[in-house]
Amino acid sequence: MKQAIWLLALLGAATVQAGEPAPAAAPNGITLPAYFKEWRVIGVSHRNDKNSLRAILGNPAAIEAARQGRTQPWPDGAILAKIAWKESTSPDWPAAVVPGELQHVEFMVKDAAKYAATGGWGYARWLGKELAPYGKDAAFDQECFQCHSAVKGRDYVFTRPATFP
Amino acid sequence: MKQAIWLLALLGAATVQAGEPAPAAAPNGITLPAYFKEWRVIGVSHRNDKNSLRAILGNPAAIEAARQGRTQPWPDGAILAKIAWKESTSPDWPAAVVPGELQHVEFMVKDAAKYAATGGWGYARWLGKELAPYGKDAAFDQECFQCHSAVKGRDYVFTRPATFP
Repeated sequence: MKQAIWLLALLGAATVQAGEPAPAAAPNGITLPAYFKEWRVIGVSHRNDKNSLRAILGNPAAIEAARQGRTQPWPDGAILAKIAWKESTSPDWPAAVVPGELQHVEFMVKDAAKYAATGGWGYARWLGKELAPYGKDAAFDQECFQCHSAVKGRDYVFTRPATFP
Repeated sequence: MKQAIWLLALLGAATVQAGEPAPAAAPNGITLPAYFKEWRVIGVSHRNDKNSLRAILGNPAAIEAARQGRTQPWPDGAILAKIAWKESTSPDWPAAVVPGELQHVEFMVKDAAKYAATGGWGYARWLGKELAPYGKDAAFDQECFQCHSAVKGRDYVFTRPATFP
């Protein structure tokens, strides 16, 4: 019953735009996950070194894993999405840093076998509102992988799921 | 068809805990909206004056309104949720501010007639992981209303929906 109510609440006003052209795939073949804007929140962050604010979302498999603490390792099928905005100042509350221009959206797709060469995760990023694929060739993800290797002990994921009530 | 795929993606691994005891209502009678953790993202913020990071979510009516720009005024039925965490530093990336302890969850519930005395919005807040209702008596929301009156010209809402792809 409760599940039914929840579903009705979600479906009550679904905002899915059909017919939008899909952006080009990343150079390693990863395509933009559909409906990632509808995914739920895993965390947020403010990167002072990049002057950007981020929302970290997860597909249902990732949300399940995050809420149940199954992140060492994350399960195959989990996808993490990071939406990054240039930091801006609230016109109405100067002490608040708020999202400005959209910088990029980026993804980590867990498939231990398929992406074994990059720690079990496939990486992809699209830039700006026009969602231009990032990277010159298929080797672009070495840049992602090398940086994320700093957190190899956390299955290559910097984000620690935030505490929810 | 696309809608069907989206629904399947959302429903694939629904994480709804049934049987959790509901927290007490706010002193003005507002009850904690069910399943707000499943709501989608409207924005994020970093309050330097409160040393907190926030995720701003919306129920389906609020998400519809935000994406369509119907926020002057927001429609009746829209509910905005703000989840606030104490700011912390990423153990793995010192330049990143990340969520620490959960501080509170707070809500704005739009009903122009019902909440006419407070600008058409009902306010409520619950503190900490235990979700203790905030406010000594039903007049607590005057504090909320007075602060939000600074943005009366934006229908009392500080959050400007972030840009999504």
